[in-house]
Amino acid sequence: MAPYDPRRFRALSFHDATARFRDGADTPRAYLERCLAAIARREPVVRAWVVLNEEGARAAAEASTARWRAGRPLSPIDGMPIGIKDLLETRDMPTQMGCAAFRGNFPRRDNAAVWALREAGAVVLGKTVTTELGGAHPGPTTNPFDHRRTPGGSSSGSAAAVAAGMVPAALGTQVGGSVIRPASYCGNFALKPSQGAINRGERQATSMSTTGVHAGAIEDMWQVAIEIARRAGGDPGRPPLSGPATPPAPRRPMVLGVMETEGWAALDPASRGAFEQVVEALRAEGVTVLRRTDHPLLEAFEAALLGMQAMTSAITGWENHWLFRNLVAQDPEAISPRSRAVLAMAERMTPEDYRLLLIRREEARARHAALAPVVEALIAPASPGPAPPWAGDVPGRPLAARPTGDAVFNTPSSGLGAPAVTVPLCAVGGLPMGIQVMGQPQMDAATVAIARWMAGAIAPVLA
Amino acid sequence: MAPYDPRRFRALSFHDATARFRDGADTPRAYLERCLAAIARREPVVRAWVVLNEEGARAAAEASTARWRAGRPLSPIDGMPIGIKDLLETRDMPTQMGCAAFRGNFPRRDNAAVWALREAGAVVLGKTVTTELGGAHPGPTTNPFDHRRTPGGSSSGSAAAVAAGMVPAALGTQVGGSVIRPASYCGNFALKPSQGAINRGERQATSMSTTGVHAGAIEDMWQVAIEIARRAGGDPGRPPLSGPATPPAPRRPMVLGVMETEGWAALDPASRGAFEQVVEALRAEGVTVLRRTDHPLLEAFEAALLGMQAMTSAITGWENHWLFRNLVAQDPEAISPRSRAVLAMAERMTPEDYRLLLIRREEARARHAALAPVVEALIAPASPGPAPPWAGDVPGRPLAARPTGDAVFNTPSSGLGAPAVTVPLCAVGGLPMGIQVMGQPQMDAATVAIARWMAGAIAPVLA
Repeated sequence: MAPYDPRRFRALSFHDATARFRDGADTPRAYLERCLAAIARREPVVRAWVVLNEEGARAAAEASTARWRAGRPLSPIDGMPIGIKDLLETRDMPTQMGCAAFRGNFPRRDNAAVWALREAGAVVLGKTVTTELGGAHPGPTTNPFDHRRTPGGSSSGSAAAVAAGMVPAALGTQVGGSVIRPASYCGNFALKPSQGAINRGERQATSMSTTGVHAGAIEDMWQVAIEIARRAGGDPGRPPLSGPATPPAPRRPMVLGVMETEGWAALDPASRGAFEQVVEALRAEGVTVLRRTDHPLLEAFEAALLGMQAMTSAITGWENHWLFRNLVAQDPEAISPRSRAVLAMAERMTPEDYRLLLIRREEARARHAALAPVVEALIAPASPGPAPPWAGDVPGRPLAARPTGDAVFNTPSSGLGAPAVTVPLCAVGGLPMGIQVMGQPQMDAATVAIARWMAGAIAPVLA
Repeated sequence: MAPYDPRRFRALSFHDATARFRDGADTPRAYLERCLAAIARREPVVRAWVVLNEEGARAAAEASTARWRAGRPLSPIDGMPIGIKDLLETRDMPTQMGCAAFRGNFPRRDNAAVWALREAGAVVLGKTVTTELGGAHPGPTTNPFDHRRTPGGSSSGSAAAVAAGMVPAALGTQVGGSVIRPASYCGNFALKPSQGAINRGERQATSMSTTGVHAGAIEDMWQVAIEIARRAGGDPGRPPLSGPATPPAPRRPMVLGVMETEGWAALDPASRGAFEQVVEALRAEGVTVLRRTDHPLLEAFEAALLGMQAMTSAITGWENHWLFRNLVAQDPEAISPRSRAVLAMAERMTPEDYRLLLIRREEARARHAALAPVVEALIAPASPGPAPPWAGDVPGRPLAARPTGDAVFNTPSSGLGAPAVTVPLCAVGGLPMGIQVMGQPQMDAATVAIARWMAGAIAPVLA
């Protein structure tokens, strides 16, 4: 493969195809066939999919074709082929969660977001590879820009399928960094919405997981999210994603802040240089960009991010441990050694330990809320550099700590329940590295408006 | 059966049996056999159980007997036979949820609370009858004090099993009034803890459901709740039940408030009279009891309770509609006409409707929070009088609206996320009617301390 060059890379998009559906020059059925051709071409190496429902997708695309022809599409995403991360239930395909314990699991029901996509006319094409139960243990997917590297995780297949031009969009989920980071490694746009803004349906067991959207175009990213939320709402007890029925217009911010996180010191010079070039480009466009030393509230916020990664891991480990323990009780080999290590960590915690972590999380959220009048959004690298190599664990050696990469730049948005958007603005060493824009909770549309402006106004950076 | 007389009724208790387990005069195994004998005697009419695991229970009771004999019980509830509402998963019994769609459902895993009970040495004896999916459609259970009447719901079997002396305690769940009301109808103590204070495990799909405890003795009620919370914690993102490791000592309040709710005007004279006698008895004990006209914040709070029942029903209907729709998609007859009517209501709602209901709920919670410095707790009838008759739907006639009784006095604690305790203090027409004590969220132990004081200091009332 040629090195990734964000100036030349053309991602698959859908929003710009629908005018031709309407006039008959193109059809959702033909669009789907092009996706299937891309899958046939790239899937043997990329391995983004667990299962495809080609027959069902073709029938759905035919129905969509008829609706567009009649001038009565169900929504702007009517006919869009879409991948569903294999943690979310689908009535027509198994849901195996990258986990031996769920092999063949087939509950024959739709997750709320999947149901909403079908109601909007989207073509549910297949299930994309997830790490085991959304954790650290990787699946077989490779990075579409270098097959020796990870696509990131846990939404590995969704990110890779979009990057490989197999589908214009795919659903992912993030509990640590599972949407924003794989999008960074794969050159996608991605939205990790405010906590609870997209109904997780049957997947309510952890307090920081969020359903998100990977897409080749930011317009499609927003459209998919809002079509889901308009039909399925948010999580129980949470406000649903709020914003316009079409993609928010690009909006230049007056003031942004740089969020360093505890990952800053370890960022490699090339990646840091690429990020600083983006900061300079923003300033050249008239945006005030505050650094942590520029404002005491920004410095206080950074202090609250220290330890965020360990904190979010422990919170999620505790929340998942009923699930893990039940699986291990049935079969000690049902989950990988990586997941068993998470269980062992959780088994050492008490409810009081967990309570204290929640309090620390609340404190961090308070410091983030205090930034609302100071900066319109925060920006940061969406990952600590480009995708790291991954060649599998070596038998007899300790397990690699982070086979799908480091979530250190992502745990803030997860812990804070804040919306974040990956913007594919950089190439580092011929591989993608995204820039993230993080807003205040519920300010998803405003955050996307800034991200969209950046995508149009800031020239891609090569480092 | 003789009329219910709270002065003479002796509920089954456990906390006072353990001294004899220690000295060998009694054993958990013998205690279990007495429970099984009570079940054999009463179950043909009461019909509290869906399934019993007698063999597993006997093995667990044997193991407990050995622990007590060795002076090493796992907890104060080691050896306690307990019933589990059939909405909660158990690894050794099916979980059928009172619903045709879940007939034979057997996931072979333990709900977090069930796991915690086993860790504490409790004897998981069987699954108790629930209304269909915890909604309005009743199961076969009858009221142990009058088989022509409902035991209440949705925790029908748990309330009836405790009232019939079959077990000293049972887990229930409340989303509208499903713990506090059946306890009222069945003469139990019951705790509906603060929202999220007991980990619901796999049952996170609605924002107001809460796992609660029915018990013959308030000491057992607290002990069961705290043993669960100490091991399984609270819901993801929520503080776990907090309080002493043994039952909170009785505490006389200085100031209580009367909560009328929108059910007050329709309360029958005998039930209202019984409640007023309790108020007078409290005053005779030196407690200041404020009425709504005594304090503008209490009046403002009551105003926020108007429409609470419709609001909580709509919120839960919306939250459940992914589940219901998936069931109906598989088989239109999978759920009862009552549940299908709930689904139809939810299908007419939009995410914005739901959002507005959440805002109204927040407003009600703010008005409740404002009462914290005004009253130590609120008291109210735990149900609108004693259990109503229930003889089944009449073919060809419209479905009865509330076969398990009216939750109008219970939706406040559900909507507010507040802890509530049923205290069996009254008999009305020879049937039980409980008094509820409702506290501020997280103040479960303080609320139980007041309830325990009332149970000891206030003479039962017959009306």
